[in-house]
Amino acid sequence: MSLNSIFQYFVPKDRKFFPLFEKASGNLINLGEALNELVHTNDLNRKTELTKNIEDFEHVGDDITHQIFLEMGKNFITPFDREDIHALASAIDDIADFIHGSAARMQLYKITDNTVPVQKLSELILQGCQDLHKAVCELKNLKNIRVITDSCVRINSMENQADYVFDRAVADLFEYEQDAKLIIKYKEILSALETATDKCEDAANVLETILVKNA
Amino acid sequence: MSLNSIFQYFVPKDRKFFPLFEKASGNLINLGEALNELVHTNDLNRKTELTKNIEDFEHVGDDITHQIFLEMGKNFITPFDREDIHALASAIDDIADFIHGSAARMQLYKITDNTVPVQKLSELILQGCQDLHKAVCELKNLKNIRVITDSCVRINSMENQADYVFDRAVADLFEYEQDAKLIIKYKEILSALETATDKCEDAANVLETILVKNA
Amino acid sequence: MSLNSIFQYFVPKDRKFFPLFEKASGNLINLGEALNELVHTNDLNRKTELTKNIEDFEHVGDDITHQIFLEMGKNFITPFDREDIHALASAIDDIADFIHGSAARMQLYKITDNTVPVQKLSELILQGCQDLHKAVCELKNLKNIRVITDSCVRINSMENQADYVFDRAVADLFEYEQDAKLIIKYKEILSALETATDKCEDAANVLETILVKNA
Repeated sequence: MSLNSIFQYFVPKDRKFFPLFEKASGNLINLGEALNELVHTNDLNRKTELTKNIEDFEHVGDDITHQIFLEMGKNFITPFDREDIHALASAIDDIADFIHGSAARMQLYKITDNTVPVQKLSELILQGCQDLHKAVCELKNLKNIRVITDSCVRINSMENQADYVFDRAVADLFEYEQDAKLIIKYKEILSALETATDKCEDAANVLETILVKNA
Repeated sequence: MSLNSIFQYFVPKDRKFFPLFEKASGNLINLGEALNELVHTNDLNRKTELTKNIEDFEHVGDDITHQIFLEMGKNFITPFDREDIHALASAIDDIADFIHGSAARMQLYKITDNTVPVQKLSELILQGCQDLHKAVCELKNLKNIRVITDSCVRINSMENQADYVFDRAVADLFEYEQDAKLIIKYKEILSALETATDKCEDAANVLETILVKNA
Repeated sequence: MSLNSIFQYFVPKDRKFFPLFEKASGNLINLGEALNELVHTNDLNRKTELTKNIEDFEHVGDDITHQIFLEMGKNFITPFDREDIHALASAIDDIADFIHGSAARMQLYKITDNTVPVQKLSELILQGCQDLHKAVCELKNLKNIRVITDSCVRINSMENQADYVFDRAVADLFEYEQDAKLIIKYKEILSALETATDKCEDAANVLETILVKNA
């Protein structure tokens, strides 16, 4: 950790970690877009197809995360602190997992209705993934720090909105839904979606940490 | 991490981290006290007011956590290991989040009855926050290690009691409550309260780690 | 972290960490075996006895984890990176906690029926604990890296199977079980069992990290 800071002037331009992180955050946009189409379409065949696509994107993400961890093991010197590389890769992996988990539950629980809070949370997730990707792409030169900072601010505000949508949606379920089974099912799906936005915030927090250390 | 140990004799008396940690743990007492009044009063207006206070205290806590992370980024040398500073600040932040989450759910789910297990868990949380604050205030000189150790022991025993209260309360819900909706609502609130006590234990574990390293 | 790598040639053969880890993973086998008998027997007295045994094994595990953390605080040089020791000990401790949590909930919620998905998940957990123990026992010399790699591959595949069993079981509950209370109870138990397999995977991931760093 501290040795990294000492050695940072001798580190050759990193050609391993940055491209992997850009792939990982780019993959999140694919996941976010598929999720959004899934919760807006009424075509059941298309829903099945999109759920399958989301599963495939999630596997792609797993492979990228695995490659990042392998590179960490092989490289004594890393472009930023090892703990931050680990935390950022894990947060991106978690976002993918929870997007996939939400879609998988919709299919498993045979939820085919597209409700407004589910759509709203999916839109917030996509927006978070887009901001995250924008910020990650700036990491390699840190010349446009402002782009990263602005993305992080928007991700934090997105997560606050998601909290509000989730809390309101669960309260409404208790208020207006009589079928306990449906309450449990929707609560599970809303909760997976909301956790995806928490993980976006975790990723943004890591980016801010990296900025502070390297500014 | 290891460099910290080497350099520790050259570190000037820390004036940044200790005051922030004392503020953070002091803020937990405010949260714990407001929570306790909330689950004991029957005055609905006062309940609304207290829920708002808890939200405000939680924002204060967020700011303190943010300042601790900023200081970590700015300081190469820290009074104890960076990983422990991060873990302690995160645990304190989590306690605040779960106290706030419990109160917010009571309001959202329109739970106005004060049940005994909710009261008991709230009392245990306040007790945990008081012990944590006492221990954190001793960190700066480490002269009264016994105060820290005793607080940690009490926090661990508090968390065990909270586990028992929670398990018993959930089992009783299944046994005596017929309304599935109410079961789900109370289970959510009890679970948020119980997680707050887990986070107290996490904080106590970090304190013990710091003691072992610096004794 | 980095200093460890520099100093590793001077580290005397570790006699502290490896025996503790072997004890910890050996203890998981006891937990896994007791869990399996518990979900297969119909003898209610034996069930009570086994639940008590599981609680005792979990306390044994707590003590071992505590000893590992104490050793970490006392030793400047460790046989592999401190972060990995911490992560491995925590993952093993979590596996024990979730096995115990599953058994405790069965008792608390008065679930005496042995359902197929609960049995299947318990078998997968035992298999994961056995593979984990096998791998941990190879850590001390790293001569049979293949044994560790193979165990990790099997643990990953086991966790995938557990995910499938869990998802299917919850979907079936929604499809065929009318009693919302029973749905909630079984979902809680299945979820604790499934989380135990996640924690096995976490432990396997740490083992792979250690391998990559030391190969």
